[in-house]
Amino acid sequence: MSLFGSNPFPAPGPKAELEEGAVLSPRFGADGLITCVTTDAATGEILMVAHMNAEALEKTIETGEAWYWSRSRGELWHKGATSGQIQTVKEMRIDCDQDALLLKVEVAGDGGCCHTGRRSCFYRKVESSGAAARLVVD
Amino acid sequence: MSLFGSNPFPAPGPKAELEEGAVLSPRFGADGLITCVTTDAATGEILMVAHMNAEALEKTIETGEAWYWSRSRGELWHKGATSGQIQTVKEMRIDCDQDALLLKVEVAGDGGCCHTGRRSCFYRKVESSGAAARLVVD
Repeated sequence: MSLFGSNPFPAPGPKAELEEGAVLSPRFGADGLITCVTTDAATGEILMVAHMNAEALEKTIETGEAWYWSRSRGELWHKGATSGQIQTVKEMRIDCDQDALLLKVEVAGDGGCCHTGRRSCFYRKVESSGAAARLVVD
Repeated sequence: MSLFGSNPFPAPGPKAELEEGAVLSPRFGADGLITCVTTDAATGEILMVAHMNAEALEKTIETGEAWYWSRSRGELWHKGATSGQIQTVKEMRIDCDQDALLLKVEVAGDGGCCHTGRRSCFYRKVESSGAAARLVVD
C-alpha cells in the first residue's frame, strides 16, 4: 500500500524492457496518476483526456469498463455510473515509455462523454492569426 | 515571468467562461505543463502524448509547427528539428476545462513520430484475461 493506494503493477524496468517488453508496468507520475486518452472505438474521434491511478487502471482491466481518478473530486470515478454513459473498452494501448494510455471505447446511454453535454470534450478549435488565438465552437 | 517562464495567456476565468468562452486560457498544471495529444490529421491515428509549457504552446501557435516541453531533457523541444519529423499543425483543439490540447498534424520526413522508430508511440496493445495483463506489439 503506497501513499496513493495499492499498486498491483510491477515497477517499471530498464528502458529496453519498458519499451519493447510484454510487461505492463505503467509509470504513474509523482501524483500517482497516468494520463489516459479515450477515443470512440468506431469512429476514432477523441472523446476525452483523463487520468487513472493504479486502482482505476486495475478496475478498468478487470471490468472492461473505464474507471478514472477524478482530480476535481479526489475520488475513483466509474465513468457513466450516474450519467449512464458507461464506456466499454474495446481496446487498450500503452505508449513507448508507458506513461500514457489509450482507450478505444463504446459509449452507452446517449453516447455522450463531456460533462457539458457534448459528445467530445474537444468541441472548440483554436483559431489563430500570428500570435493571437481565439476559440471557436464547431 | 513566472517560475516556469513567461506565460502570455490570460489567466483562466470562471467555469462558464473557461468552458464556453472564446478566450484561450490554458490551465497549466503545478509543473507548468499542459497535456497534448497529437494525431495524424489525415488518418486520425493517435501518434503521441506529450506536454507543452506556455512557451511551447506560444511557439506552436506562432509557427504552425509543434513545439513541446521535453520532461526528460528539461528543455523546449521543436519536434523534428533533428529527425526531420517536423509536425505541421493542421488543426488545434482544446478541451472543456482547458487542461488538454489536441493537435492534428502532418508529419514530415519519414512520417514517423516515436523515438523507437515507429510511426505511433502506441504500438502495443494491452491484452488481458481477468486481472492479468500483457503487452502485445501489433
